[in-house]
Amino acid sequence: MTDATHDPALRSWVESANGHPDFPIQNLPLGTFIPLDMGGARVGVAIGDMILDLTAAPVDDEIRDAAAHPGLNALFALGEGVRKSLRARLSELLSDPAHRAAVEPHLHPTEGATLLVPSKIGDYTDFYVGIHHATNIGKVFRPDNPLLPNYKHVPIGYHGRASSVRASGTDIRRPKGQLKAPDSDTPRFAPCERLDYELELAIWIGPGNTLGDAIPISRAPAHIAGYGLLNDWSARDIQAWEYQPLGPFLAKNFGSTVSPWVITPEALEPFRAPQPPRPEGDPAPLPYLLDEADQAAGAFDIALEVLILTAAMRGKGMAPHRLSLSNTRHMYWTVAQMVAHHTSNGCDLNPGDLLGSGTISAPDAAGFGSLLETTKGGKEPVQLPSGETRRFLEDGDEIILRARAARDGFAGIGFGDCRATILPAN
Amino acid sequence: MTDATHDPALRSWVESANGHPDFPIQNLPLGTFIPLDMGGARVGVAIGDMILDLTAAPVDDEIRDAAAHPGLNALFALGEGVRKSLRARLSELLSDPAHRAAVEPHLHPTEGATLLVPSKIGDYTDFYVGIHHATNIGKVFRPDNPLLPNYKHVPIGYHGRASSVRASGTDIRRPKGQLKAPDSDTPRFAPCERLDYELELAIWIGPGNTLGDAIPISRAPAHIAGYGLLNDWSARDIQAWEYQPLGPFLAKNFGSTVSPWVITPEALEPFRAPQPPRPEGDPAPLPYLLDEADQAAGAFDIALEVLILTAAMRGKGMAPHRLSLSNTRHMYWTVAQMVAHHTSNGCDLNPGDLLGSGTISAPDAAGFGSLLETTKGGKEPVQLPSGETRRFLEDGDEIILRARAARDGFAGIGFGDCRATILPAN
Repeated sequence: MTDATHDPALRSWVESANGHPDFPIQNLPLGTFIPLDMGGARVGVAIGDMILDLTAAPVDDEIRDAAAHPGLNALFALGEGVRKSLRARLSELLSDPAHRAAVEPHLHPTEGATLLVPSKIGDYTDFYVGIHHATNIGKVFRPDNPLLPNYKHVPIGYHGRASSVRASGTDIRRPKGQLKAPDSDTPRFAPCERLDYELELAIWIGPGNTLGDAIPISRAPAHIAGYGLLNDWSARDIQAWEYQPLGPFLAKNFGSTVSPWVITPEALEPFRAPQPPRPEGDPAPLPYLLDEADQAAGAFDIALEVLILTAAMRGKGMAPHRLSLSNTRHMYWTVAQMVAHHTSNGCDLNPGDLLGSGTISAPDAAGFGSLLETTKGGKEPVQLPSGETRRFLEDGDEIILRARAARDGFAGIGFGDCRATILPAN
Repeated sequence: MTDATHDPALRSWVESANGHPDFPIQNLPLGTFIPLDMGGARVGVAIGDMILDLTAAPVDDEIRDAAAHPGLNALFALGEGVRKSLRARLSELLSDPAHRAAVEPHLHPTEGATLLVPSKIGDYTDFYVGIHHATNIGKVFRPDNPLLPNYKHVPIGYHGRASSVRASGTDIRRPKGQLKAPDSDTPRFAPCERLDYELELAIWIGPGNTLGDAIPISRAPAHIAGYGLLNDWSARDIQAWEYQPLGPFLAKNFGSTVSPWVITPEALEPFRAPQPPRPEGDPAPLPYLLDEADQAAGAFDIALEVLILTAAMRGKGMAPHRLSLSNTRHMYWTVAQMVAHHTSNGCDLNPGDLLGSGTISAPDAAGFGSLLETTKGGKEPVQLPSGETRRFLEDGDEIILRARAARDGFAGIGFGDCRATILPAN
């Protein structure tokens, strides 16, 4: 249900917010930041080119106290009621000029502030709900058997590494690892030669559950604090050799990049859509994964973009080049289904935990979410406007993920960049 | 190198320590506890039937400060030098009656104290270094292909769930999940019917590394804070259906049990052994996994035991029944190799992180580390002295893991119990 906070005519007295591609007053995403020249991480809200410090803003004491933690965990733990009230209050504070004198002293320029990983992540789980990606990558690793029989019954996921998640802007070092060429009997230890990105939706967890008590799918939305972008950097050569039988490990845990702003479910309300019907012949989800309200509004229509800026392009002053344009509509399972499945065995989710959607590829090559897919395993290099080509990533390449939601009658909102540059191996 | 702290003639003025099967003065394991009738978790040392509160003991201020944290993370971060000095100091304090008056007021009875998970676990990684287990379980899931070609090159591991690790004594609820019978086309959602334990060595991480900087194998010992027991509870039916292609997920993350005491590398020094030579024809480890000192002393000789106590046995006042007797010698990779491999791509380990060895099975059925192996996938039930049989675990069953190191000329030490009882599904 949209409300006055979504009114496209609503304007902020923070002038940079009006017409801002990402952070107009209709967005109001939450993040953790350190203001320029001030010590101490705290929680803030992006508005145009500024960040409102929630520890000092005229909001409820409960929220100011939670905002003083160096991460969104405490605020996420307060749940959706508090978050919805906060949105209404912020919308009023930042639109009504009567509040300007009280609020303006607590605005900090985003430029110069340090944006951190939004929460202290307890656990990070990566799903695999992009069905075109699962099919494409399955063809590379298992040509005869791309989409396994469990895929349409189980929202497949696995545990990722929380310690190596970094905020947008932190460089990623090329990993070394065991590489085994198909024509060699033995592996060698060397820098990764098939370094890749993965375009994913990040999901941040709210209150969560006690170990042993599942979250029924009808209650899942109450435990989703918000959304962001995730680049699940992947070393394809390490992955191919190590991943059997227990899954990806060193191929993924050398670094993952998240966008620093958490876009709330409230901000995304206008961009929800019914979950697309399953293709004819696909099995119905088991009852614990099926909810009428979730089917009616469980999908999102959010454009997802991958861009590359190589060192040579940077040297020539060129703009980043789009590698892919995809959309969250290509998720086979909804986020509520992911949460219900994850806790169906009693596993506990905690405030600030991170879920990844898995790579979200469109059905066509212009919308594939990884180079492994776009270049068909490195066989068909991508041409860049600088005259360069890429089979996989080279040192100095910067990858930028972006997301944007737009719909007639509503102000479009963006997620802010999720970007990082590859450093050479040590 | 053993020293005076290992002298088997050394006695403590804490009488219950002398001849204690687990915690004589030669052990001195670290843990996190809440004393009876006192709020607040703090770090302590087990000595016989008592726990010495390290926040109040006459030890260095640096240690007392670190001990006031509700977990061993801060003490682990101080590194091996501090830990070795602490051992020497504790050995003196608890053996020399001159210190009794200053130390005794800070001893608390273990009975009545609450023993917690030793650290706040940032990330938990489970390895797969028990080669007999890997072969046995491989036969169940992949009869034609039990031990994959990467096994003898790569210390295989995967990420586990940190949030659901619990200390010994916390009941474990039987999970529900998707089960698919081999003769059925579709799964159903039901309580797990093939619930199992896994006998593992727990490894607790010390200072750790910065993201991007590997820990060379020669430096790995400096980052190992100590050892314990880990029961990696496993839902075999959920596992069989979900684990392809990304590995185990809900089959494992409904709960893992750790023993509360961290046995230091110093305490285990007398029980180290050269890493057994690899069978003829096995490949040599790649250079980043090979270290002379590690080969000379990288293995342990520690007996590992699994016992069961069913509800019926408890009702009849029967003692727990041994299901398995194994040994840490059956690890194909050393702990230093696990640490070096884990960080070889730059992945950061942090103080208090947990590594599991993977299930450690002996070559013979009397020493298999899981029921899946012992009962050949449920086909050959185990007979219990109560007249009951078990293919897999039933509600009310308690599983107890124990470990004991003994060698002529040294006082034997134990790890303390790692135990938990199965509750019925919700």
